[in-house]
Amino acid sequence: MTGETGSSLLRDAVQETALAIDEAFDRLLPVPSDARARLYEAMRHAAIGGGKRMRPLLVKATGDLFNVSAESALRVGLAVECIHVYSLIHDDLPAMDDDDLRRGKPTVHKAYDEATAILAGDCLHDIAFEVLVDPRTHADPFVRCELIRALAVSSGPAGMAGGQMMDLEAEKSGFDLPTVTRLQQLKTGALIGFCVEAGAILGRVPPEGRTSLHGYARDIGLAFQIADDLLDVEGDAQLAGKALGKDAAAGKETFVSLLGVDRAREQAHILVAQAKAHLHNHGAEADLLRAIADYVVERDR
Amino acid sequence: MTGETGSSLLRDAVQETALAIDEAFDRLLPVPSDARARLYEAMRHAAIGGGKRMRPLLVKATGDLFNVSAESALRVGLAVECIHVYSLIHDDLPAMDDDDLRRGKPTVHKAYDEATAILAGDCLHDIAFEVLVDPRTHADPFVRCELIRALAVSSGPAGMAGGQMMDLEAEKSGFDLPTVTRLQQLKTGALIGFCVEAGAILGRVPPEGRTSLHGYARDIGLAFQIADDLLDVEGDAQLAGKALGKDAAAGKETFVSLLGVDRAREQAHILVAQAKAHLHNHGAEADLLRAIADYVVERDR
Repeated sequence: MTGETGSSLLRDAVQETALAIDEAFDRLLPVPSDARARLYEAMRHAAIGGGKRMRPLLVKATGDLFNVSAESALRVGLAVECIHVYSLIHDDLPAMDDDDLRRGKPTVHKAYDEATAILAGDCLHDIAFEVLVDPRTHADPFVRCELIRALAVSSGPAGMAGGQMMDLEAEKSGFDLPTVTRLQQLKTGALIGFCVEAGAILGRVPPEGRTSLHGYARDIGLAFQIADDLLDVEGDAQLAGKALGKDAAAGKETFVSLLGVDRAREQAHILVAQAKAHLHNHGAEADLLRAIADYVVERDR
Repeated sequence: MTGETGSSLLRDAVQETALAIDEAFDRLLPVPSDARARLYEAMRHAAIGGGKRMRPLLVKATGDLFNVSAESALRVGLAVECIHVYSLIHDDLPAMDDDDLRRGKPTVHKAYDEATAILAGDCLHDIAFEVLVDPRTHADPFVRCELIRALAVSSGPAGMAGGQMMDLEAEKSGFDLPTVTRLQQLKTGALIGFCVEAGAILGRVPPEGRTSLHGYARDIGLAFQIADDLLDVEGDAQLAGKALGKDAAAGKETFVSLLGVDRAREQAHILVAQAKAHLHNHGAEADLLRAIADYVVERDR
């Protein structure tokens, strides 16, 4: 596959996924005509019209390897995006990272208030499981249970939320490279791992057949985080739609502070090559996964 | 059944359930030896050694009608208690109800900090679904999916969290009796409804056979809330283990402000009688549910 083909494949898939996720959120979150209207408006503010939708794209790209239906992949992508958006709302709160801007818009607690932001996050958290447990996600309840278990583990204390806790502690004590790696494997890696695992679950791939996909997910997860750390140092806040330079200001160790800019960039590219190597048993049906791996380090926001 | 028998039946079941839930939380939340230790300690602080455990008790009492195994009922009770505890942690936050004391102990954001409290709540939220999806809860994935769907709906925007949003809005505008009733049916009633529904789901009772149980849950849910409103006005803060008189201070309409103390108390007793009437098709196996209905309005905390 040439870079040209890969990028047009990626561009089309990104656009299609972004549109489908926005439409799905619009249907999922109709504003009721009672005192809960503000809650739904806050969820819509955070969920609709933003983000790269990289996680739903990963579910779709992995599903493509195993002939997973578009509806199943989209619904699982919607669920994981509910979790991702809930985590952004809570992470942006004054008591956490205290951010005013997200995806170029005011964060939920700025546009509404803190209480509404906490509840909007909590509700999207529930809705993720509501979406997964629906028979439209997959006809077989055993498959739905596998998806639910994987999502609960990867978003909870052994995954994303556990990583966020480590991140808060990182401000207090200087972490070394193995600890920062572990932190990021939990904080961003676990949910990225879920996306790839979910594609395999929907495709009825038994656990022992998922090893190379786990390797792919682990490598692009870390590459994604290194790229994020590089953008935090070198990026354009306008393009990113959020404040940058925050890690250095907070005195937090990152891949860039520990490795330096050049070695961090090199490491990201090594990880992308490794990620693609995990796909060697697959042909053209894995081109989208390959294009995502390249994009992870080439993006400017 | 005499009141005497009912109260000893209740006392034994309350003690047994409280012990079993504490032990289950202790096993569920081992403190890891890494930077997430603080997160687990915060969850343990909130989850272990407190509360009436009325929700797990309701699951057990309903399960008793349908020969549900003790382990299934306990695991579902543990899951609903995870949701209840997470909601208390978030509701107590400064941006929400701003409470310093809960169950006679400092609230989580007081004992730890706000960020840890937000994350501890988020993690218990995930763990609830992790517990439900585990095959030890029920061997049949279809039953587990039914439980997960019911819990996600009753804790999300169409249930508990939606009710909490209405409660925040209640401070701004004076709600009338139908609106306060609707608010409380969501805020506390939905999760109580889940407990009773879960007993029926575990007992393989088809939806059309659950009507009288729904009626029982609706009635004790409202009676419970009226009793709470009465305790907020007349109760002993020492016994309650939390600040009282907060609704009046916030200018919020409650059953007591709308009906007056006497009519509110009368209404609670009518609801308890109605709740017990819904159980008329059941014999002695429903005595625990009857005793819980009495307890809901007779408790002093």
